[in-house]
Amino acid sequence: MAEAGSEVSQTRIMVAVNESSMKGYPHASISSEGAFQWTLQKIVRYNPNGFKVILLHAQFPPGDGFNEMDHVYTSLNDFRGMKNKNKPRGLHLLKYFVGRCQHMGVPCEAWIKRGKPEEVILLEVRRIRPDILVLGWRGLRPFESVMYGTVSDFCEKHAECPVIRIRRKEEDMPQNRVDD
Amino acid sequence: MAEAGSEVSQTRIMVAVNESSMKGYPHASISSEGAFQWTLQKIVRYNPNGFKVILLHAQFPPGDGFNEMDHVYTSLNDFRGMKNKNKPRGLHLLKYFVGRCQHMGVPCEAWIKRGKPEEVILLEVRRIRPDILVLGWRGLRPFESVMYGTVSDFCEKHAECPVIRIRRKEEDMPQNRVDD
Repeated sequence: MAEAGSEVSQTRIMVAVNESSMKGYPHASISSEGAFQWTLQKIVRYNPNGFKVILLHAQFPPGDGFNEMDHVYTSLNDFRGMKNKNKPRGLHLLKYFVGRCQHMGVPCEAWIKRGKPEEVILLEVRRIRPDILVLGWRGLRPFESVMYGTVSDFCEKHAECPVIRIRRKEEDMPQNRVDD
Repeated sequence: MAEAGSEVSQTRIMVAVNESSMKGYPHASISSEGAFQWTLQKIVRYNPNGFKVILLHAQFPPGDGFNEMDHVYTSLNDFRGMKNKNKPRGLHLLKYFVGRCQHMGVPCEAWIKRGKPEEVILLEVRRIRPDILVLGWRGLRPFESVMYGTVSDFCEKHAECPVIRIRRKEEDMPQNRVDD
C-alpha cells in the first residue's frame, strides 16, 4: 500500500520548529533552523514539487490567541490578518519558515499546536502520518540530556514514522549548550 | 562549507545492507531491503541524478558461514577457502542492490568491508562523510534489543552524520523477530 501510494504522492516531510531560547520569538532556535535548512538543501532542493514540507510548532505553555490553534497556513497571504491584532508570536515563527519555503517554491503547510513538544509531535505524526520527521538536535552530552531531557531522543524512540535528527554544528553551539 | 559544497554536489546517501539471516546469501535481510526500497521510493526517485547511493556491506567473519562450523582448522590455509567463499557471496548481495540502482538510473557505489557491522559502519561514515546514513531496523522490543543488541541503535547514537532508521513493516516480521 505504502509503495503504491508513494508512486502518485509527494514525500511529506514534517519539520518540528521552535523559537530561540535566547532571543525568543520570532527567532527560530539554532537546531530547528539547522534542521529546516538541511531538509531544503539535502533533500528538497533537487525537486521541490516532489515534496511537501509540513511545519509544526508546539507552543508550551500556550499563549493567547487559541483561535489560531489548529489553523493551517499555506501561504504568506494567510498571515496578513495578523497585523494590528494580538495573535500568538508563534505565527511569526511559522511565517518565517513558510516564507522560506515559498521563496524556494516548496509546497508547505504549517500550524501550531498547544502542549508539550514531544507529546504534540508524536500525536501529530500519528495523525498526519508523514513519510519523515525531521528534528533539530542540540547534541547534548549524556549528563546534560538526563538533566534537561531532549525532545528528539524521545521522539526518535517513539514516533511512528522514520525520524532523522540534525545535530547542531559545533560552530553554532551557544556558550551554554542547553540554550538553543 | 557544507552548505556551499551541497550547492554543487549530489546528496550522498549511505545504505548499509546485509544478508538474510534465514535464507543467507545472496538474499538481502528484510530490514536492509526495506531501508533500500524506502530510500529509492521516498527520497531518490524524484530526481535520481541529485543523489548518489553508497551501498556498504559489512562482512563479519565467518560471514554467514555457518557451514564453516564443525570444520576443523589445522592451518591458516584452511581459512583461505572460507574468505574466498564469503567474499563472492557478499558480492552477489551487492550486485543485487547495484542492479536495482542501475535500473532506476541512480548513481551508486558499493563495497564490502570485513568487521563488526557497527564498527565498520561508523568507520566508513567517518571516512566517506555521507550526508545521510540509512539503516534497516528490525524493530526489536527493549528486552530483545538488550539480549541480541541492535546495530542501528548503536549507529544512531554514534554515527557522525544524520541517521535515519527504517523499521520493518509489521507484515514483514518473521515468526522469530530476531531473524531478519
